[in-house]
Amino acid sequence: MSAEVVSIKRDQPSLGPILSLIATPMNAVNAVILGRMQSEVPLIPALAGHLISGGGKRMRPMLTLAGAELVGYQGTRHHKLAAAVEFIHTATLLHDDVVDGSDLRRGKETANLVFGNPATVLVGDFLFSRAFELMVEDGSLRVLKILSSASAVIAQGEVDQLTAQRKIETSEERYLSIIGAKTAALFAAASRIAAVVAERDEAEESALDDYGRNLGIAFQLVDDAIDYDSAAAEMGKDAGDDFREGKMTLPVILAYARGNEEERRFWQEAIAGFRNEDEDLAKATDIIRKHDTVRATRDRARHYAERAIDALSIFPDGKARAAMTEAARFAVSRGY
Amino acid sequence: MSAEVVSIKRDQPSLGPILSLIATPMNAVNAVILGRMQSEVPLIPALAGHLISGGGKRMRPMLTLAGAELVGYQGTRHHKLAAAVEFIHTATLLHDDVVDGSDLRRGKETANLVFGNPATVLVGDFLFSRAFELMVEDGSLRVLKILSSASAVIAQGEVDQLTAQRKIETSEERYLSIIGAKTAALFAAASRIAAVVAERDEAEESALDDYGRNLGIAFQLVDDAIDYDSAAAEMGKDAGDDFREGKMTLPVILAYARGNEEERRFWQEAIAGFRNEDEDLAKATDIIRKHDTVRATRDRARHYAERAIDALSIFPDGKARAAMTEAARFAVSRGY
Repeated sequence: MSAEVVSIKRDQPSLGPILSLIATPMNAVNAVILGRMQSEVPLIPALAGHLISGGGKRMRPMLTLAGAELVGYQGTRHHKLAAAVEFIHTATLLHDDVVDGSDLRRGKETANLVFGNPATVLVGDFLFSRAFELMVEDGSLRVLKILSSASAVIAQGEVDQLTAQRKIETSEERYLSIIGAKTAALFAAASRIAAVVAERDEAEESALDDYGRNLGIAFQLVDDAIDYDSAAAEMGKDAGDDFREGKMTLPVILAYARGNEEERRFWQEAIAGFRNEDEDLAKATDIIRKHDTVRATRDRARHYAERAIDALSIFPDGKARAAMTEAARFAVSRGY
Repeated sequence: MSAEVVSIKRDQPSLGPILSLIATPMNAVNAVILGRMQSEVPLIPALAGHLISGGGKRMRPMLTLAGAELVGYQGTRHHKLAAAVEFIHTATLLHDDVVDGSDLRRGKETANLVFGNPATVLVGDFLFSRAFELMVEDGSLRVLKILSSASAVIAQGEVDQLTAQRKIETSEERYLSIIGAKTAALFAAASRIAAVVAERDEAEESALDDYGRNLGIAFQLVDDAIDYDSAAAEMGKDAGDDFREGKMTLPVILAYARGNEEERRFWQEAIAGFRNEDEDLAKATDIIRKHDTVRATRDRARHYAERAIDALSIFPDGKARAAMTEAARFAVSRGY
């Protein structure tokens, strides 16, 4: 029995291969990140550093770097661009935490809790501007177009999510459109720009975009599953946050769709904000378990991860493709 | 006596000439602004429109358009770019109102009061991204560099202002550095890009930059003077806001510098936030009147307006230069 568990563990996908694939360029990216978040206004590096040095996985720069390996890019332009992607992401996280009033991220107190909302909003703006400065230094209008357009889509997705909050009638389609915008658009852009700097053809650009976009959807689905699934320690954020904020994520959307009259009434009240107690979260988790919607959410995630993996099929076999394939498998195995 | 008042009125500088100079292109800019603030997420145009249609003077796009007239630019590229400038400014205003917790702007309830802080932060992000999309469509890396760098400087200025808030020891130099960043950088950039699209030489670019930067400083100084000078109706924001928020603006910095022991103690307590009542504001206004620091602030503003006007000396005389000269005179005569 114990041997079996060990062997399952051993077969579990990990980020190991992709991390070792990009270890050297990631050091260069980290140097850009640390260098370019400096400012003569000391609060800026203090606040930015709180989040940036706070144990993020650098998923999005990882995609740019791995994509560059995949297409055999030999230059260094992607270092600055990967840093720009991370700055855009960090700006979004800072603003998200203000918007949600979160107090825990990656297992640490959020910047807004430590430094206050005003500074957090403004440092987000600073990082966002810095991201564009980095792109302008690189000088590719194509990259600028891809990332400015992704940024506008992200903001629209965030506003759309806000509009859908506490709205029980949110459909799976609407939810997919929201996460496609707020999460997957930057995954797609981060991947695509690797092909752009390497001057590959549109087919390879598209393939990397598809990989990133599907991976981003899978990633967000798993995040949303974990919020009803695991201990807070797992994600470094408070489990049940989504429930208390009345966010319509897929585990709830499916539980509502599959629920009986009484369960639907419960969800209506809970999502409207009238059931905020621990016992309400316990009841929500029970209903979700009954209808197996965390598993269903993970199944949906696996579907997108498979699409991500298949999008890589136009590239030759090799270390990079294998590492990116395993990274997609890892994304959906998290929290199991 | 009454005749004399009328004649003074008649001599007062106005925005009339600059407004008629740019009336036609401003219609084109307004069309871009209205068209590009749209989104399939209805909250976005609703919130953006609340501020954008809310009677702003479009000062910054005005600078781009007037600058283009001054250098004889014949094209239409500046329409999109002036809209981008206004979007950057609007994003900043939305975030400012969240940061300051303001509830009145341009005589209307602020967006954050009507739509809430979360939506206001996110729609600011959207407009900021849209600004970059517009610049990318235009395709000039020089313009992108000028405006991305201005955006980073603005954010740094805002953070710096936040750091200086409630700090009685803030010097005039520090204050000038803050308003140079948070206000004048965008005035300068908005003016400079007119020369860039017209492909004029560095001397003309610099002259327009100098005009905008000095005008921006003058403009902010007068705003800060008016906050201790006039009825709330004048600016469409609550008079005394700066006092209650503990902002170290020049009327206070000078009153503190010129004050006696007892007055300094008052400012220390007030700026630290322990004197928030109407009677405290009345006392602040009295001390400021005694030391004549509103007038001193306006004198400083006039100095910068004159520098702005003199920066235009490399351009030939004509309607555009006269209108821009009068606009600078108007900027410092406001609220008298």
